[in-house]
Amino acid sequence: MAGVHDEMWEKLNLDLTAHEGLLQVLGKFYGDIYLSQENRLKGMEYMDFVLSEVHGLRIKELQDAKAEGKKIIGTFCVYVPEELVLAANCVQIGLCAGAEVGMESAERLVPRNTCDLIKSFVGFKLSRLCPYLESSDLVVGETTCDGKKKAYEAFATYAPMYVMEIPQTKSEAAKALWRSEVRRFKARLEELTGKAITAEDLARGIDIVNGKRKALQRLSALRAADPAPISGRDSLLINQISFYDDPIRFTTQINALCDELEVRVAAGEGVAPKGTKRVLLSGCPMAVPNWKLPFVVESSGAVIVGEESCIGERNTRDLVPDATGTVDDILDVIADRYMKIDCACFTPNAERPGNILELANRLNADGVIQYTLLFCQPYANEAMRMEPILKDKGIPSLALETGYSMEDIGQLKTRVEAFVETLE
Amino acid sequence: MAGVHDEMWEKLNLDLTAHEGLLQVLGKFYGDIYLSQENRLKGMEYMDFVLSEVHGLRIKELQDAKAEGKKIIGTFCVYVPEELVLAANCVQIGLCAGAEVGMESAERLVPRNTCDLIKSFVGFKLSRLCPYLESSDLVVGETTCDGKKKAYEAFATYAPMYVMEIPQTKSEAAKALWRSEVRRFKARLEELTGKAITAEDLARGIDIVNGKRKALQRLSALRAADPAPISGRDSLLINQISFYDDPIRFTTQINALCDELEVRVAAGEGVAPKGTKRVLLSGCPMAVPNWKLPFVVESSGAVIVGEESCIGERNTRDLVPDATGTVDDILDVIADRYMKIDCACFTPNAERPGNILELANRLNADGVIQYTLLFCQPYANEAMRMEPILKDKGIPSLALETGYSMEDIGQLKTRVEAFVETLE
Repeated sequence: MAGVHDEMWEKLNLDLTAHEGLLQVLGKFYGDIYLSQENRLKGMEYMDFVLSEVHGLRIKELQDAKAEGKKIIGTFCVYVPEELVLAANCVQIGLCAGAEVGMESAERLVPRNTCDLIKSFVGFKLSRLCPYLESSDLVVGETTCDGKKKAYEAFATYAPMYVMEIPQTKSEAAKALWRSEVRRFKARLEELTGKAITAEDLARGIDIVNGKRKALQRLSALRAADPAPISGRDSLLINQISFYDDPIRFTTQINALCDELEVRVAAGEGVAPKGTKRVLLSGCPMAVPNWKLPFVVESSGAVIVGEESCIGERNTRDLVPDATGTVDDILDVIADRYMKIDCACFTPNAERPGNILELANRLNADGVIQYTLLFCQPYANEAMRMEPILKDKGIPSLALETGYSMEDIGQLKTRVEAFVETLE
Repeated sequence: MAGVHDEMWEKLNLDLTAHEGLLQVLGKFYGDIYLSQENRLKGMEYMDFVLSEVHGLRIKELQDAKAEGKKIIGTFCVYVPEELVLAANCVQIGLCAGAEVGMESAERLVPRNTCDLIKSFVGFKLSRLCPYLESSDLVVGETTCDGKKKAYEAFATYAPMYVMEIPQTKSEAAKALWRSEVRRFKARLEELTGKAITAEDLARGIDIVNGKRKALQRLSALRAADPAPISGRDSLLINQISFYDDPIRFTTQINALCDELEVRVAAGEGVAPKGTKRVLLSGCPMAVPNWKLPFVVESSGAVIVGEESCIGERNTRDLVPDATGTVDDILDVIADRYMKIDCACFTPNAERPGNILELANRLNADGVIQYTLLFCQPYANEAMRMEPILKDKGIPSLALETGYSMEDIGQLKTRVEAFVETLE
């Protein structure tokens, strides 16, 4: 594969040697964790292909889009309204943040006690290994946590940063702040493209993103079946890919995959025997290729049936309602949809406990694993809050705090196996 | 001393035995760090007295105020507008957060990777050792960091919490959010006291708090002298006491102490020989009795000439301008004063580098020690940002990350001594 895209990667100023090494490791990792699975869906062939070309053909598409005058908007968070980005005829992509890359150099820019997701995106930049970042005309950060918001200040020296303020409560005044931030973002996009965003543009953007979310909701709903018709790893991968694939093509593929799933569910077939212990993963996002914990869980006799996470339900739960009227009217409807997200950045994050319980119930989960990235204070706190709530409802839970290193994988496996053992 | 206040402490539901132990440790610690100093100001006798009665007479005063119908407002942050609290005829006090108390029980409520200041206030509550907290009718938190805002959610089970949303930028929309938060706080105080706050009430509150700030500004200005007329420990103590003493009495005392300082400065006298290396402490707040680092610095051949901290300059730099007009007009003027605070919770925190340089210059500091509480991501990030800025201006700096434990005191001393050695 290397060689074909070398010229493009060189133009993007990637470190070609290190990048070749990264792709090899990623390929090996993917082979071990994904391709080794039995009884996979035919629809996953598309995902395998997309993943194999994650730094290749998709990046080529971005360069082609740029050549046509489209702008590339890089993001790190489900709070960036893709509806606006699509309305502006731009391409939105999630940036590299899931691999243990350049961590040492990252620690020259952000404190040691920073979560690996943040260190990773800083490390990818300093190591020149993320072609998505290097393709971005604008990188949109947000104030969802101390670690990120302060890291962006340093990151702004290296990337064309733009930061959106996410409020910390859901009061009316906080919502007004967010509505104004959505307007400011629209203006920034218009400045970037030199073209005004119309109500029709917004309607098109809403339609595309809602379509993607509906397809992912359909996938989520099908996972309620026992036997589980798709592995947690594959579902996570699909949600991960939703952040950087072309949204229309992706939606078509996911709907086709859901058709296949429906047949499988009707036939009572699955990826694990009926009665396999069912686990809901809850907490911090898992960016590509952060597949460590899903792999540990699914090689410990359990199957993952849901991701209560930004790369998962938190991104897909809410659609933007049908909106008509002026651009301002529609912007408000979009803004309000994002204010429903139950991110731990809010205090209180009142909706989240109910959402977790509803999801665990709907997906017939036998237990919940609360996953926290080491040094992520918002989710670490909420994991402590959730424990008695889950216990009260008779749902066993296990709280795990870990980073991207593979050093603790044995220890994680021991704890997860013991947990799965207790599930009834 | 114990015995006299036992009945009061028992009424406040303190753990009497543990509390007696705490006071003994505090007394010993104070003796070692404070009373051992030579050439102290006569004005410090008042501070010694206040500190010796920190859980005694001052708590008695709070009970007397409560008996008169006054409400006690506990706080953790310089963002809580004391002007409003005084306007409501309430008493504002800073809550216990500076000692290694109840840390293990705190870790059942907040994550291990939480800074000691937060663990301390949680620990004080769970150990029933803070008579200020137990006297509080309302505890006002704020969203200045992930650790605090999420800890308050758990803390609300144990204390009458009220949380103010501090925005994360200084945009116009963010300022509007803060102005609305100030109004909401006023309404909450009115609800608590059953009495409306008038423009005259606000004017009185502004007058008292400005008076306190002016006295502390006067103290800060006098520290520019060489030889340093007052130790950093004593100045820190004064700033610490400013958070819980009666503001009018305190202001009178500080002005008297400043009179004494002026005489000393005019006579060329000080607490250390002229030419002693001068250090500016910068970063996280040091709550009573967090005197570890000041003690280390001042027993390493240097004198501390300023605290660029919330318990220091960040609290006293800005006055509320004269305000006339309606209650709403005055509330806006108060709100806008607080939005000037250069807290690391803002992104970017644009004013802080200039403020640090101005302070280092004005106080003739030879070097800056950047103090970060372990796991405080906002200040840890800013310490990394400040380093090249200080270097660029030829100001040596040392970044230290530590908690409340005394375990690393030898290591800190080695690093500080080496740093002081390099100062010119």
